[in-house]
Amino acid sequence: MSDTSLFRYAVEAHEGRARSGILTTPHGEVRTPAFMPVGTQGTVKGLVMEEVSDLGAEIVLANTYHLYLRPGHELVGRLGGLHAFMRWNGPILTDSGGYQVFSMARIREVRDDGVVFQSHIDGSSHTFTPEVVVDIQRTLGADVVMAFDECPPGGADHAHAREANRRTLAWLHRGKARFDELEARGGYPAQTLFPIVQGNVYEDLRREHARAIREAGDWQGVAIGGLSVGEAKEDLWRVLELLDPELPPDRPRYLMGVGYPDDFLEAVVRGCDLFDCVAPTRNARHGTAWTTEEGQANLKAARFRDDTRPMDPGCDCGTCARYDRAYLRHLVVAGEWLAIRLLSVHNLRFLVRLAEEARSRIAAGDFHAWSRDWLERYRSPEG
Amino acid sequence: MSDTSLFRYAVEAHEGRARSGILTTPHGEVRTPAFMPVGTQGTVKGLVMEEVSDLGAEIVLANTYHLYLRPGHELVGRLGGLHAFMRWNGPILTDSGGYQVFSMARIREVRDDGVVFQSHIDGSSHTFTPEVVVDIQRTLGADVVMAFDECPPGGADHAHAREANRRTLAWLHRGKARFDELEARGGYPAQTLFPIVQGNVYEDLRREHARAIREAGDWQGVAIGGLSVGEAKEDLWRVLELLDPELPPDRPRYLMGVGYPDDFLEAVVRGCDLFDCVAPTRNARHGTAWTTEEGQANLKAARFRDDTRPMDPGCDCGTCARYDRAYLRHLVVAGEWLAIRLLSVHNLRFLVRLAEEARSRIAAGDFHAWSRDWLERYRSPEG
Repeated sequence: MSDTSLFRYAVEAHEGRARSGILTTPHGEVRTPAFMPVGTQGTVKGLVMEEVSDLGAEIVLANTYHLYLRPGHELVGRLGGLHAFMRWNGPILTDSGGYQVFSMARIREVRDDGVVFQSHIDGSSHTFTPEVVVDIQRTLGADVVMAFDECPPGGADHAHAREANRRTLAWLHRGKARFDELEARGGYPAQTLFPIVQGNVYEDLRREHARAIREAGDWQGVAIGGLSVGEAKEDLWRVLELLDPELPPDRPRYLMGVGYPDDFLEAVVRGCDLFDCVAPTRNARHGTAWTTEEGQANLKAARFRDDTRPMDPGCDCGTCARYDRAYLRHLVVAGEWLAIRLLSVHNLRFLVRLAEEARSRIAAGDFHAWSRDWLERYRSPEG
Repeated sequence: MSDTSLFRYAVEAHEGRARSGILTTPHGEVRTPAFMPVGTQGTVKGLVMEEVSDLGAEIVLANTYHLYLRPGHELVGRLGGLHAFMRWNGPILTDSGGYQVFSMARIREVRDDGVVFQSHIDGSSHTFTPEVVVDIQRTLGADVVMAFDECPPGGADHAHAREANRRTLAWLHRGKARFDELEARGGYPAQTLFPIVQGNVYEDLRREHARAIREAGDWQGVAIGGLSVGEAKEDLWRVLELLDPELPPDRPRYLMGVGYPDDFLEAVVRGCDLFDCVAPTRNARHGTAWTTEEGQANLKAARFRDDTRPMDPGCDCGTCARYDRAYLRHLVVAGEWLAIRLLSVHNLRFLVRLAEEARSRIAAGDFHAWSRDWLERYRSPEG
């Protein structure tokens, strides 16, 4: 058994389904709701980890699939593990690789045994089994290890989604067995394994899967996968609402792949605690920044040419403290890397600050009123 | 007349032709020999100006041609000038645009009047005259303004180089008249105009041009252009040596476009004081870093895979303080922006530190012995 005593979650306050809490890990505490910046290849694109820490992030995500392919988990392990490798001493969650294998790689074969795929980098052939995926993440030394899952595409039919659920559950049992086996063998840091609830937009499949997963172990947290993959927003909210009574109430719920500001708040309303998304950095690459009063703004717009205000006048990030929109627009239009860096800092801080504010509003008991107002303002830009 | 009292240069120590000194500008002092990081489009690629300052740079260069095209000097002027726009309160030198017009743009016509060219960005047609180039730089608010020059390609023949010299000299007179006219008109900050000595690798042309320029005004500094454009290294050193007695001994000499570590030292040996080059940041983009013991190293090499040493164990930059070669190599191989940023910091600091050490060696009187040893070590890598 893994040393679960080093992991715990305490719900601190509730308002309806929304809750705030503290997730304790061997590398520190994470106050929830929490947004996890994505460090795909062992780096949050363009930033040093001091900056990620300075903007208030308390946990980051890294990608099992990417790190396995490059530079290889064994090398990272030899070099002291992922925390040492990427210079981040806070908690790390590594994803299962399932989403990447099913979306980026060329699939050769999906078997009950595992998935044979070709690397998106060089076409080389690899096999991910539930055991391999646990081995990789234990070697990387992630605090939170995700069980391997089959993640069908957004429009998958009921039969496909059902089959994926069946496999994902069988893989969870095998992944857990492997995780416990390595734990018994020793030599790994304190880690914990989170299962992933799949089932697409199908109510029966989501319920069934959540129940079966809950029966399969006393998890320190549960992830909700297979959403934010192109389904309608109503389906996303409906699934979160139907899952609420099916998930352990005293464990953190990690909604995978969600991280636009409005979606983030809507999911907090529906009881989710942990989030990750590449949107802050991807939007930065496209010259797009989030603002409280003007919604999502693209700096290529001519109206920013002479605009000497900070990107978001209410923001406390390093970018808003030092630069104006006119300069940021120039960097975006000129294709300068600094634009991506400065907008990444801003967008990440925007989400982390939103999570901080949601926390304090839940504690104060005015989260619903505040989030309703916030969403209305964000969605009706003045700009 | 410009307020030249705000500009002065004092040679502090000599060793042979090599000298150390202090260039005083309205935005602060520059200790020479000095390397000027290149902020082409109003940003030193990927870095914030606090980082540029932290790595010891005391002056930066920006590009007249680029800023004229994007975002436009008039916009920069309206926004408070280039210092305010790019958040750099130290001295700025803007180049003449000559090199860019003759190397990047599509030339439509070179006339005695000026150059008609097409933008490399959108093909739009523009004309640079000596007056326009001064107007742009005065509006940008650069401390040091460069006179417009014709910069023939590396292999230009004697007749072509002679013609370019004739034009460059005529343009200098016109540029100076324009500079003084704007000064008399008022409303500009304290600025100074540097001429550029051309003449390719031809001894007679270099001498003639240097003499004519010296007679044309009491310049606060003189630039040496048209080198580092593909000529043999012996030609470069020969030109610097023959120019030495022709240039004002008490004014800084700015060798344009030179900035590989070994070339930098060789030019300091030959009496040059100011330098600029995109090599530190361009090399960073190619995954290449400078080291004292191993020369120029490309991180793609497999030998760095497990290498847990800093990039250059003797270096005091932020990259070497925090990261190892194995991680930097991973970032390079994975195509991560952070690689460019971290290697830019290292390469820039490497040159700035080399300039600092050259200064103190000149003061101590052991510069020649030290630089000979340094060059030998750098050119005979152990790695």
